[in-house]
Amino acid sequence: MKDIRRFLLGPPLRSVEARHQRLTKAKALAVFSSDALSSVAYATEEILLVLVAAGAGALWLSVPITLSIIALLGIVAVSYRQTIHAYPSGGGSYIVAKHNLGVLPGLVAGSALLVDYVLTVAVSVAAGVAAITSAFPALAHHRVGIALIFIALITLANLRGVRESANIFAAPTYFFIGSIALVLLAGLGRWLLGGNPAEAAVAASAAAGPVEGGGAIVPLSLFVVLRAFASGCAAMTGVEAISNGVPAFKEPESHNAATTLTWMAIILATMFIGISLLAVAFGIRPSGEETVISQIARVAFGRGVLYYAVQFSTALILVLAANTSYADFPRLASLMAKDGFLPRQFANRGDRLVFSNGIIILGVLSGLLVAIFGGRTHAMIPLYAVGVFLSFTLSQSGMVRHWLKTDEPGRLLHAVVNGLGATATGLVLLVIAGSKFIYGAWAVVILIPLLVWMLTRVRVHYDEVAAELAITPEELGGSLPVIEHDAVVPVASINRALIDALQYAKSLSSRVYAIHVTIDPKEGERMKREWEKWGFGVPLTVLYSPYRSLIRPLIEFIDRIDRRHPKALVTVVLPEFVPSRWWHVLLHNQAALSIKTALLFRRGTIVTSVPYHLHGATPPEPPPA
Amino acid sequence: MKDIRRFLLGPPLRSVEARHQRLTKAKALAVFSSDALSSVAYATEEILLVLVAAGAGALWLSVPITLSIIALLGIVAVSYRQTIHAYPSGGGSYIVAKHNLGVLPGLVAGSALLVDYVLTVAVSVAAGVAAITSAFPALAHHRVGIALIFIALITLANLRGVRESANIFAAPTYFFIGSIALVLLAGLGRWLLGGNPAEAAVAASAAAGPVEGGGAIVPLSLFVVLRAFASGCAAMTGVEAISNGVPAFKEPESHNAATTLTWMAIILATMFIGISLLAVAFGIRPSGEETVISQIARVAFGRGVLYYAVQFSTALILVLAANTSYADFPRLASLMAKDGFLPRQFANRGDRLVFSNGIIILGVLSGLLVAIFGGRTHAMIPLYAVGVFLSFTLSQSGMVRHWLKTDEPGRLLHAVVNGLGATATGLVLLVIAGSKFIYGAWAVVILIPLLVWMLTRVRVHYDEVAAELAITPEELGGSLPVIEHDAVVPVASINRALIDALQYAKSLSSRVYAIHVTIDPKEGERMKREWEKWGFGVPLTVLYSPYRSLIRPLIEFIDRIDRRHPKALVTVVLPEFVPSRWWHVLLHNQAALSIKTALLFRRGTIVTSVPYHLHGATPPEPPPA
Repeated sequence: MKDIRRFLLGPPLRSVEARHQRLTKAKALAVFSSDALSSVAYATEEILLVLVAAGAGALWLSVPITLSIIALLGIVAVSYRQTIHAYPSGGGSYIVAKHNLGVLPGLVAGSALLVDYVLTVAVSVAAGVAAITSAFPALAHHRVGIALIFIALITLANLRGVRESANIFAAPTYFFIGSIALVLLAGLGRWLLGGNPAEAAVAASAAAGPVEGGGAIVPLSLFVVLRAFASGCAAMTGVEAISNGVPAFKEPESHNAATTLTWMAIILATMFIGISLLAVAFGIRPSGEETVISQIARVAFGRGVLYYAVQFSTALILVLAANTSYADFPRLASLMAKDGFLPRQFANRGDRLVFSNGIIILGVLSGLLVAIFGGRTHAMIPLYAVGVFLSFTLSQSGMVRHWLKTDEPGRLLHAVVNGLGATATGLVLLVIAGSKFIYGAWAVVILIPLLVWMLTRVRVHYDEVAAELAITPEELGGSLPVIEHDAVVPVASINRALIDALQYAKSLSSRVYAIHVTIDPKEGERMKREWEKWGFGVPLTVLYSPYRSLIRPLIEFIDRIDRRHPKALVTVVLPEFVPSRWWHVLLHNQAALSIKTALLFRRGTIVTSVPYHLHGATPPEPPPA
Repeated sequence: MKDIRRFLLGPPLRSVEARHQRLTKAKALAVFSSDALSSVAYATEEILLVLVAAGAGALWLSVPITLSIIALLGIVAVSYRQTIHAYPSGGGSYIVAKHNLGVLPGLVAGSALLVDYVLTVAVSVAAGVAAITSAFPALAHHRVGIALIFIALITLANLRGVRESANIFAAPTYFFIGSIALVLLAGLGRWLLGGNPAEAAVAASAAAGPVEGGGAIVPLSLFVVLRAFASGCAAMTGVEAISNGVPAFKEPESHNAATTLTWMAIILATMFIGISLLAVAFGIRPSGEETVISQIARVAFGRGVLYYAVQFSTALILVLAANTSYADFPRLASLMAKDGFLPRQFANRGDRLVFSNGIIILGVLSGLLVAIFGGRTHAMIPLYAVGVFLSFTLSQSGMVRHWLKTDEPGRLLHAVVNGLGATATGLVLLVIAGSKFIYGAWAVVILIPLLVWMLTRVRVHYDEVAAELAITPEELGGSLPVIEHDAVVPVASINRALIDALQYAKSLSSRVYAIHVTIDPKEGERMKREWEKWGFGVPLTVLYSPYRSLIRPLIEFIDRIDRRHPKALVTVVLPEFVPSRWWHVLLHNQAALSIKTALLFRRGTIVTSVPYHLHGATPPEPPPA
């Protein structure tokens, strides 16, 4: 166990090593931007899939739609640059909204983000698998299996820790940027030269899928355009990642983070408009079989080495884009756990300086989503953008309040910039929620309030417990009250484990009672005679149980003791077998377990197990250092 | 919880009530024979499915094959009547083989039966669902879901106890016998009258499925005939059920059981040959869409009320046939657990006088099988007969040894009868294993030795533990050695739960140590000053943990105490929060859990939780009476 764990996860790290794990701008771009950048792999396709219902003649609209999303991206990026400077310790939507707008808006933003991190993993991995099955259609049937394997691998990589993650993810990100640049250049060349093999390829592609874009199924309407716009907004997911992760940058953190954000926005915008332009230029039609990127690359390069390189780098960046969420989800869960809104075990870093519980939960939930939706990107997209734009809007609104509260120079200009961001993203949120509602967005609209309610309940519980537990030295009165107690040892048969338990019980209390429960009076008499031979100095009471239950006679006996010594506690001492092999656990301690369960709620009763180490019981795995 | 449990399972029963749950012959036939009788619903079909590969001209062979299986049934029934008289306390294959041939053959027979009980549930329920989807083809897509619901219902019915089971299952068994009798009579009438609408219906049925019986795909060979015979032997499963269940009969148990067995064999043989004859007479061809029984009933009655009554009664008997296993699997598991081959929790009856653990395990495993095989009877049949005939052979061989050891009059004749049974079933076993090996029987051939090995390991473990625990009064030396111990209380913060724990620790030992683990020296100083205010009379040690781990400093501290008092035990006292709602469990006791896990293997260390009942903690469910 220990060795496997070390091999997979690496040696434990000291707390003070956290500082040395800081990221350079180039590495940070890879870790935090893969989500945003990789979304160009499906954003154009999602726009085209909506437009194609209105006929092939509507596809050109993807270019103006892309341009308007890029304009939105510019506004959001400028907005978030301000957030980075204002919140150098990490200005995620949760923090900004909670700090400036109050707890409830903070929880709404936090819930929206938690949901979206899970969706990011599921959507990105599904799209990555689509890139693979575009190149190798024979694998299409193993879509879900491949996706789950990828999720498992990313989860493991992240349990190893953040610096190694950067090393794993840097090369693929730049490989992807380079290969998409190559596609755009080659495609541009083909297009400008005209009358080349590209058109033949396109004609063939179009002929293969007449159903997809034959004629208009629905009339082109503003609603269709808005829905296409809403689908394309999936390209905007992940833009906030850098502002959440400012403390992970090398010093000066804010400056480096803002520069990285600007670069990310420029690269994203260039790739997005390039792909949309080429798709229209080449007359690409979306198909369930082959991704739009794959079709463009095939036209640009033919099915050669370069084509496969593009597919491979696309799959890689998409699968690794999920990594953005693995940095953010556990960090956000930890913040919320420290505020008492999530169980405390999310608050702590594991021995690799990562938040292990959050990482594992994220892996499990996104795996479930992939399995439920059969690994299809398009099916999950309607769930996706609501949460993103909800948290954008709350975060930017919070920033407006932030500037109005400060007296920094230029605060009004800052407020106007963030106000513009909040207004733009808020309007888009309404468009998305409205146009995608019946396509699945309703689920998120229900889920987020539910999550907020659950988070509130957790906090209320922790608050109530803290209030209940609170006590002052004055209340205690300067010293601990002395308590006395009785010990009860249930006896099944007389053996070494029982003797250890009896011995322990005698050390606890001068009033020790042994009890033996049986359905058979003869067996009871036999046990009494046997008991006499040992000289334990402890009286044995035989209890008869017509219902074969061990528990009820035991509780009745404890009740009797309680009546005799009302103020004393009762400790039930049980032998517990510590097995040498894991499966032996199934073979022992069943009675002990049911006694513990039955007595858990009985006030003034403590159940203690005295471990008996069975021969060959292995020593423990050394505790996490 | 308690009320739901009582509603579903009924009130608890006293041990002495067990006798009053005895079954009359008529009820016993329903409880123990539904498996055997219901197998006629698929046995003929399985024979035809093999023969049809050799062309429609080979289908008539199902009649001689059916007759030879009936001859085998006669031999086995006579054999088992002898077993019933020789083992009035229940002569299952496990007991007979273990008693006469030794432990290993007994375990082989036991394993084979355990596997078959699970398969009986899966196959019967799947065939029952097939009867329903034959009548209502629209339900074919919900095959697995319907099957799982039925399994859940049968499991619940059995958790209620055996007498109620008999009441639930008696009516459907006789309804099925009656409705099949009606089909046979009506079919016979149609056939003898000749030139009637039946032939038109058959022609239509044959025309609808030309693929199923068009031409020969494989040549008719001895191998095909043997394989058809092996498939048909699925009709023999469940014949041993009565001999396992002799003690459940009213007195005179053996006599009543033997009579019931004879009646069961006669009814089974009559229905089986009748169905095979009509299938050949009507030219029925097996189809994936509609069962053979359904086709015969359609020809005999047309699609009227009677047709649906037959389908309904077939579905009912098949789904309820699974009940045979629910009587036998837990009983066998209990016998094997009492012999130390299965975990002890299988040995005990629950508060409804049934073996709850065995019933639940059977439900889960058969549900898994149904899900894995997509609810298709035919896919599971090859797994089925190997185990049945393995246990038949071992049981009959054991009986031969039994007679040779006694000096009863007529013992030689008895030995010859059982020897004939053993030889016949042994030969059939070879035929089945050989002809079905590549079709799935290999899985059972691997599984049974694996199970035997596991059972042996369980027993070895229990034996080793018993030897290790054994001690005599002389070894103890007439009195318990006195032990002393130290108590350690980890402190996170000072509150009422901690005070309860400290108080308890002081009552255990005069040497109590409080420790506080922190990564922050300032926080440690603050805690020390705070501690002074309370006057607990217990020294506080602050431990610094650069690795954020609570466990390692705690263990190092215990090591230090151990060196100071090498002979003393160390008790770690922790507060444990008893929550008022189930989900609160997730919010507490995480640190306590990891301390317990880490210290479980440390010798001489006991971890005690002092329960702190959080406000509103609900009282326990009263223990099982």
